[in-house]
Amino acid sequence: MRIMGIDPGLRSTGWGVIEVDGHHTVGVGSGVIRSSGEALAERLLTIYSQLTVVVESYAPDQVAIEQTFVSRDGASTLKLGHARGIALLVPAKARMPVHEYAPNTVKKAVTGVGHASKQQVAYMVGVLLAFRGKISVDQSDALAVALTHAAYGRSAGVLRTSLAQSQNVQ
Amino acid sequence: MRIMGIDPGLRSTGWGVIEVDGHHTVGVGSGVIRSSGEALAERLLTIYSQLTVVVESYAPDQVAIEQTFVSRDGASTLKLGHARGIALLVPAKARMPVHEYAPNTVKKAVTGVGHASKQQVAYMVGVLLAFRGKISVDQSDALAVALTHAAYGRSAGVLRTSLAQSQNVQ
Repeated sequence: MRIMGIDPGLRSTGWGVIEVDGHHTVGVGSGVIRSSGEALAERLLTIYSQLTVVVESYAPDQVAIEQTFVSRDGASTLKLGHARGIALLVPAKARMPVHEYAPNTVKKAVTGVGHASKQQVAYMVGVLLAFRGKISVDQSDALAVALTHAAYGRSAGVLRTSLAQSQNVQ
Repeated sequence: MRIMGIDPGLRSTGWGVIEVDGHHTVGVGSGVIRSSGEALAERLLTIYSQLTVVVESYAPDQVAIEQTFVSRDGASTLKLGHARGIALLVPAKARMPVHEYAPNTVKKAVTGVGHASKQQVAYMVGVLLAFRGKISVDQSDALAVALTHAAYGRSAGVLRTSLAQSQNVQ
């Protein structure tokens, strides 16, 4: 099963694709979509167009997106809401099931603790997917939510096993 | 010139189309797109699909959307952000220019005062467009932002003249 995780944002939207086959989970690809410029509608169109290309290229079976922290800054929340609306729309338009996971669930699934730092999440994503080289926080967050869906979603149990194995190795 | 106004919301998105020709402004059509159900991605797809049909059917030259009040309720702001992202995307995707107006600007353009009630806005929209029958608040808000663009946008001056005439009549 191929799972795409998306970490939406108006400035940068991370995406990551993993493939789960029995006890094996491998990273297939990941990247960041950037939008800049003045006009909000144009920026959203950039996210929409690029995410559509990625979704069509990788053709995931399932898509997972992190539920959003509602910050005290209403303007930031609204901006994130715009980008997140697009991130939810694109897979729905391609008739792919979209699943949402709370931030703490993602952290717990990947690191074992709900209050892990972004660095811990990035480190464990690297360990679980045996990534070489450095990826951005947007990418590791997107891969983390994909890994969470592998653990808690339809294929429940699959990741938890490989996670336990990885942790035993350390 | 044909102008579409959109009043976005996750539950109901109002739209209204006006046509401005010299000193004449007429209402062409308006309606409400409703989305319900559990899955957020599906609701956003409903708004996207229906708004795409309306935009393609009426083929406006310009589109206007109200800037959003950021409420203290972060969860509501996020929901509205999702819907508003779709409302901005659809015309941008059809290569239509999208303009944003602050709520006070809309109220002032239509009623003459920045702190008018929704009822005053609805009343003046009816007067300006000589509408018969009742339309919903979502529809009158959408038509109001279209009228605002007619007044402040490219055709600046056109609506203000007809507005002044309407107010003299009362």
